[in-house]
Amino acid sequence: MTDIRPPAVVLVRSQLPENVGMAIRAMANFGLADLRLAGPRHAWPDPAATASASGALERASMEVSVYADLPAATRDLQTVHALTARPRALARETLDPAGSASRLRQAATRGERTGLVFGPESAGLANDELGVADTIVSIPATGFRSLNLAMSVLLMGYEWHRSGDAGGGPAATSLAPPAARNELEFFLDRLLAMLEESGFLYPPEKAPRMAASVRAIFTRNRLSDQELRTLHGILSSLRPSRGDSV
Amino acid sequence: MTDIRPPAVVLVRSQLPENVGMAIRAMANFGLADLRLAGPRHAWPDPAATASASGALERASMEVSVYADLPAATRDLQTVHALTARPRALARETLDPAGSASRLRQAATRGERTGLVFGPESAGLANDELGVADTIVSIPATGFRSLNLAMSVLLMGYEWHRSGDAGGGPAATSLAPPAARNELEFFLDRLLAMLEESGFLYPPEKAPRMAASVRAIFTRNRLSDQELRTLHGILSSLRPSRGDSV
Repeated sequence: MTDIRPPAVVLVRSQLPENVGMAIRAMANFGLADLRLAGPRHAWPDPAATASASGALERASMEVSVYADLPAATRDLQTVHALTARPRALARETLDPAGSASRLRQAATRGERTGLVFGPESAGLANDELGVADTIVSIPATGFRSLNLAMSVLLMGYEWHRSGDAGGGPAATSLAPPAARNELEFFLDRLLAMLEESGFLYPPEKAPRMAASVRAIFTRNRLSDQELRTLHGILSSLRPSRGDSV
Repeated sequence: MTDIRPPAVVLVRSQLPENVGMAIRAMANFGLADLRLAGPRHAWPDPAATASASGALERASMEVSVYADLPAATRDLQTVHALTARPRALARETLDPAGSASRLRQAATRGERTGLVFGPESAGLANDELGVADTIVSIPATGFRSLNLAMSVLLMGYEWHRSGDAGGGPAATSLAPPAARNELEFFLDRLLAMLEESGFLYPPEKAPRMAASVRAIFTRNRLSDQELRTLHGILSSLRPSRGDSV
């Protein structure tokens, strides 16, 4: 998997350099480093873009190139997906972001050069521009749809990243490993002995059930060795209050 | 699936109303409509926030409420996930956004009130604020990590939306529902006060760290109301041993 080239991000007729900067910032999080401006409506480079990229332009070794138009910007690409909020009757397959990312990764894995095309902030891509793409991507929304350019780039970058995880397993847990069962039992025995003495396990006919719920509380969360030491320290600092009367 | 309540979004000590507006805009796309500002560093309502929300504030029937701090803002929530860029040694399970969304949806499906907590723009959440959460969420990044507040909210909203696609979801657990956050805090306050008195939280310079690990032990396993009653009963049956010498 070393040689997989992430998709180029193509921004068509972008209007504000600030938005380009925000898109760069979004790209940088997910290793996207090939930005292509197709017929931008602003100068490039631009200090406002650099500022809104928050350092990503320099530090993420982003390559930014400017083209006259969309066909020029996608000339070398083999698989091109275009984003639109309104998938019209285009006779093109429409995928969601995850489907698109997985398709792009398959293509990149075969050594293809891939790209994601985003329209201008206000109006999105024109129909003939969408025609450059072999596949249309539509980001779902539940409520009031209001995604700006950088947000769309972010979601696609995120899905590109995710598509590379598949099988790598989710949920890197930072928890310490649970203690061995005998250490847990030793703690529970000590706690229950103390509760016996304190009068908590009373009346006797209810004691087994109460002991079971105490055990459940401390068994369920897979305590680590360090946490058991903490709990032992707590027990050592306390004593049964019924012992006072002795 | 009619009755599922999306997670509340809790922004802690937000610094700029523009960023809150952008977060609202992000939320609106995915049906998140309960925004809670915990100790904001700016006035609310604010015209700059309304402007950057791009209409989402009015048109997405967003409910925004202001609280003094994080504990106040999460009092009624039963499942709380907190975002951090640096999952430290917190003895909390760390999930990726998809894992978090699926967990939150399971909880919401059981009728629980859930929330996602985001720290201030510059610094993120403090360790003791992360301690309020039962689960930590970390957004993965490949390259130069640079996600702003609204971007993080957007990705979590997107995953929440996606989690609703997945066939309705599994996981009716037989565990009793977790207690509301204020009940848990009440127990932890009582326990820590007792440990203060018992001399367990000693020496003073180590006390905050020790208190944090005690909190982690009891926060992680989502104690039910019944279990909290059991633990209160245990505390009532014990007393600080240092009290003896008085």
